[in-house]
Amino acid sequence: MLNFNEENFLSVTIGAVNLRSKIEEVAKEVTIEDFENIFLIGSGGTIALMYPLEYLLKTKSKIPVYTEIAAEFILMQHERFNEKSLVILASLSGTTEETVNAARFAREKGATTIGLVGDASTPLATYSTHVLENAAANDTLCESMHIQLYQLITCLMNLRGEFPQYNQFVEELKNLPYALISVKEATENKADQFAQKYRDETYHMVVGSGNLWGEAYLYAMCVLEEMQWIKSKSIHAAEFFHGTIELVEEDTSVILFKGEDKTRPLMDRVENFVNRYTKNVTIFDTKDYPLEGISNEFREYLSPIIIATAVERLSIHLEQKRNHSLEIRRYYRVVEY
Amino acid sequence: MLNFNEENFLSVTIGAVNLRSKIEEVAKEVTIEDFENIFLIGSGGTIALMYPLEYLLKTKSKIPVYTEIAAEFILMQHERFNEKSLVILASLSGTTEETVNAARFAREKGATTIGLVGDASTPLATYSTHVLENAAANDTLCESMHIQLYQLITCLMNLRGEFPQYNQFVEELKNLPYALISVKEATENKADQFAQKYRDETYHMVVGSGNLWGEAYLYAMCVLEEMQWIKSKSIHAAEFFHGTIELVEEDTSVILFKGEDKTRPLMDRVENFVNRYTKNVTIFDTKDYPLEGISNEFREYLSPIIIATAVERLSIHLEQKRNHSLEIRRYYRVVEY
Repeated sequence: MLNFNEENFLSVTIGAVNLRSKIEEVAKEVTIEDFENIFLIGSGGTIALMYPLEYLLKTKSKIPVYTEIAAEFILMQHERFNEKSLVILASLSGTTEETVNAARFAREKGATTIGLVGDASTPLATYSTHVLENAAANDTLCESMHIQLYQLITCLMNLRGEFPQYNQFVEELKNLPYALISVKEATENKADQFAQKYRDETYHMVVGSGNLWGEAYLYAMCVLEEMQWIKSKSIHAAEFFHGTIELVEEDTSVILFKGEDKTRPLMDRVENFVNRYTKNVTIFDTKDYPLEGISNEFREYLSPIIIATAVERLSIHLEQKRNHSLEIRRYYRVVEY
Repeated sequence: MLNFNEENFLSVTIGAVNLRSKIEEVAKEVTIEDFENIFLIGSGGTIALMYPLEYLLKTKSKIPVYTEIAAEFILMQHERFNEKSLVILASLSGTTEETVNAARFAREKGATTIGLVGDASTPLATYSTHVLENAAANDTLCESMHIQLYQLITCLMNLRGEFPQYNQFVEELKNLPYALISVKEATENKADQFAQKYRDETYHMVVGSGNLWGEAYLYAMCVLEEMQWIKSKSIHAAEFFHGTIELVEEDTSVILFKGEDKTRPLMDRVENFVNRYTKNVTIFDTKDYPLEGISNEFREYLSPIIIATAVERLSIHLEQKRNHSLEIRRYYRVVEY
C-alpha cells in the first residue's frame, strides 16, 4: 500500500485498544462521582469524532449528552453544564487552543474532565482530571481516538446497565487493528483510481448520516479543504434533498459514506437519486468489508472507524496524484490570528 | 425596494405576532401535560429555523432540548423521546414529506405535537395536537416562523419561571414588523451592490455562530444552493479555523452574519482574519440596525429574524442581477425520488 507503515499503524491502534484497563479505571471513578450529563467537546476534527458517540448515547442511553464546539462552549453559558457534568475532550497535539481553553474552563467550574491526547505532557492533559494518552499522527488520529472513545463511552454505559455486551465488544476490539489493515488493502485500488480520475476536480459533495455524519463533516473539512485545498460540501443525507440537491449536474462528484446503523435507508435514498443524475458517484460502504473477528452485532458501532481507515487511503492517493502534501497549510499554525 | 410588497409583509408578520393568545393557550395546555423534554424537528430550512431556539433553550433553560432532522428522527430510535416529549415541527406548505412523517410518528408514540403551518388544512396539521397557522410565502417564511417559535418557546420558558420578561418581550414584538421593514430599507443598497459585484461568483462561504448558525446554514443551503444554484459552504465561526480557512484566497467571497449574543467574539475573530486575506468580505451585522421599539435586552434574541429579513433583500437582488428566478428547481418537487 502507498505510504503505509503497517508497524506504526498497529502500534497506534493496539495502543488505543490496550488503554482498556486505564479506561475502565477512569470510568469507574467518574461513575462513582455520579455525573448527571456528558459534554463532548472538540474543535474541527475532534468535534467530528465526537458526533458518532453523541449518536450512540442518544440512541442507546438515557444519559443526557451535549456536543459543543470548544470555543462556543466557553462563551455560550450552557445551562445544563455544571460541576456534575462529565466533560470529554480530545486533541492529539494536546495544544489545540480552543480545546485546551475549554478544558480549563470546565475544570474551573468544578466539572470532571477526561482528556484524550497523544502526549500526556501537553496542556490539554494539564486541565484533565483523567488523561488518556496514546501517541498517533494525522494518518492514525481517527482510529486512535475512535477506539478510545468507543471503549470509554460503552464502558460508562455498561456501568449504567445500558451496554451489557461491553466485555465481548472490547474483547473483539483486539481484532480490529488487523481487520482495519484488511479494510485498507481492500480500498487501495479504489483509492488509486479515484485519485487519478478526480485529481483535477475542484468540488466534491460528501454525504453521511447517523453515526457517519461526523466522518462526512470531517473528511470534507479536515482533508479535502484543509489538506488538499479542494472546495467541498458535507451534507447530511436527511438534508440532501432540501437544497444541495439542486447543484447536482451530470459531472458532479458525490462521495457517499454508507454504514450499518438504522439510518442506512437515508443513504440508500441519496444513492438512488445521484446515480440517476450524475455519473460521478463514489461509495464507501462498510458492508463491503468483512471485518474478521468482529461480530455482526458490533459492526454498526464501528462504521466511523471503518470509513475513516478506508478513506485515509483516498487521502494518501490524492496527495500523490495531485502532488499536494497533506501536511502543507497556508494559515493553520503558520500565521497568527 | 425591489420586488417588495409591504402590505403583504406586514400582513404575514403581524399575523405571526397576533398568534400570541393562541400560543399562550397552547403553551398552558402542554405545560399542564408536564412534558419532560422538547424535540425540535424540521427538514432543510425548518430545521435551520429551529437552531436558534435550541440555542436559546440550551443557554437560558433547564429543559432538555433535542433538535433532530425529521427523516433521521423517525429512524434513529432516540432514547429520550417518549410520550412525555413535546415535539415542535414546522412546514410552511404543511406537506414536507419527512416532517409530516415525523409528526405522525411522534403522535403514534403518544407524544404531544405542535405544528406550525401556513394552512391548517394540510397534512402536518392533521398530525399536530396543536396547530399554529399563519399563511406566508418563501420571502416571509423565516420571519413568520421565527416570530411564532420565539413566542412559543419564551412563553413555555416563562411558565417554567425561566423567562420572566416574557410579557414585555411579546408586547415589543408588535413593533417588530415595522422595524424589520426599516432593516430591509437599510439593506437595499448594500444588497443591490453585492448582487452586482458577485453576480458571476461561483462560490461563497457563509459564516455564523450562536443563534445565527442556523441562518448561515439556511442561507447557504436553501438560498444560494437551492434557489440560485451557487456552490456555498456554511461554516460555524468556531470551526472556521479548523479546515475551511485553508481555502481562503484573495478573491474568496466570505459572507459573515454577526449577531449580539455571547458568541459574537467568535465572529470578530473570523472577521479580523478574513479581512487580512481576502478583499471580498461582506458583513451583515445586526448592530447596524436600530430596531425602533425593541429594548436592548431583547436584541440578541432577534438576531436570526433581523439577518433573515436583511438577506431576503440579497436574494431578491441576486435573482434580478443573475436573471435566475428564486422559484426555479431542477429536482425538488419536480422529479420523483
